[in-house]
Amino acid sequence: MTYCVGIALEKGLVLMSDTRTNSGVDNISVFRKMFTWSVPGERIITVMTAGNLATTQAVISKLEERTKAPDERTNSLMDLPTMFQVAIETGKLLRETVRHTQETNGVRGKGRFTASIILAGQIKGMEPRLFMIYPEGNFIEASQDTPFFQIGETKYGRPIILRGYDRDMSFEDAVKLLMVSFDSTLKANLSVGLPLDLMVIGRDEFAPSHERRIEHGDPYFDAISRNWGEYLRTAFHSLPDYSFFQDYDPDSAGK
Amino acid sequence: MTYCVGIALEKGLVLMSDTRTNSGVDNISVFRKMFTWSVPGERIITVMTAGNLATTQAVISKLEERTKAPDERTNSLMDLPTMFQVAIETGKLLRETVRHTQETNGVRGKGRFTASIILAGQIKGMEPRLFMIYPEGNFIEASQDTPFFQIGETKYGRPIILRGYDRDMSFEDAVKLLMVSFDSTLKANLSVGLPLDLMVIGRDEFAPSHERRIEHGDPYFDAISRNWGEYLRTAFHSLPDYSFFQDYDPDSAGK
Repeated sequence: MTYCVGIALEKGLVLMSDTRTNSGVDNISVFRKMFTWSVPGERIITVMTAGNLATTQAVISKLEERTKAPDERTNSLMDLPTMFQVAIETGKLLRETVRHTQETNGVRGKGRFTASIILAGQIKGMEPRLFMIYPEGNFIEASQDTPFFQIGETKYGRPIILRGYDRDMSFEDAVKLLMVSFDSTLKANLSVGLPLDLMVIGRDEFAPSHERRIEHGDPYFDAISRNWGEYLRTAFHSLPDYSFFQDYDPDSAGK
Repeated sequence: MTYCVGIALEKGLVLMSDTRTNSGVDNISVFRKMFTWSVPGERIITVMTAGNLATTQAVISKLEERTKAPDERTNSLMDLPTMFQVAIETGKLLRETVRHTQETNGVRGKGRFTASIILAGQIKGMEPRLFMIYPEGNFIEASQDTPFFQIGETKYGRPIILRGYDRDMSFEDAVKLLMVSFDSTLKANLSVGLPLDLMVIGRDEFAPSHERRIEHGDPYFDAISRNWGEYLRTAFHSLPDYSFFQDYDPDSAGK
């Protein structure tokens, strides 16, 4: 499994992905699921992938035209005029890769060999944009109402994002929020694992504003993980107490 | 979908279930998923169900021998000597019901018509016990290491239980913890809905210690829901801040 989140802020985009892949619980590997291409000063595009690893690696390789000799490659992501067209092209490659593997294996219907993609980036003269691309190649775009996308093992880490997100928050707070969300997921699900990849794309910077791999033993992530348990318990104990014997009266509650 | 949780404490057992069933998003109903039988002073048994509603209702009806005339019924749950045997019997009825529906419909394999059950209770002279019963009829029992079970839509509400649970906590705190867990789930998933059913089974009481239906507009649940968002944000902002420019040093962290 996998966990990737992309969130859109007023200031730009923040993306985080884990790196664990597993085929069964006894075949665990570390693979990068976040890929960034940029033309400094002109565009930056980041893709995060979840699902069948052969499918997602094939899509990334095709985006980079690795079927051609190195000096003949032209990464079309670098030429397409809009993020919308980048999403169309990425979706098309994803759909074709999934279909091809399904057809050559005589598999029909959903599930096998599928993958999902979060696409984020900005091209000069346009807004930063965030898309979620489905295995069928179609896609949706983040909006004011739905300003973040998750793929993979999304549920454990969703409540804290729903509650903590604010479009005007700082990049630093957004990174903190994602770390809490990832920590909750890691605590509950073995198929999501460290290290994590982090990418911050500031509005109109057209280059990574901040990029980092969070490894096992990272002092900041460990502090978040340790403190969050304690602060959650404090928050929990600050909630009004339940009583078996009398109905709760919000007006008389001292807290 | 459904969300049910059963947790074992030193003091006894606390159980909570939602009541929403849906067949598609345009066919939503309220059905009780928690059922309790007791012989005051001798035994109390509570069952919570998730999965196919026809299956779970059939299992409950068979437990109560509703195929017989009312005066010929003997609820075997009231006679079986141990909770382990109650789990065997309940599992057998569940497996048979699932298999029968699958076979009469020509369906094989997992998924269709299945259900899961959380079984909790105490019989005099023995400890309070908590089981999770699978559609195949086999089951596992809660332990010191795994002191709670969830069925249905389990993931959204799991991180807070993992972090807030303490075997020695009061019943009131356990109810509060479950309300937070349900609130997180309700906020994220339409298929889980109010009202909620609550049952507290105190050790050696052999009768419900506390029993309640939490309806829409319940002042306590609303207070939990409202305050939890705020307290979560406070907890979040108390966490050490992330910095793009310097490594985190736990020793110099002022908080």
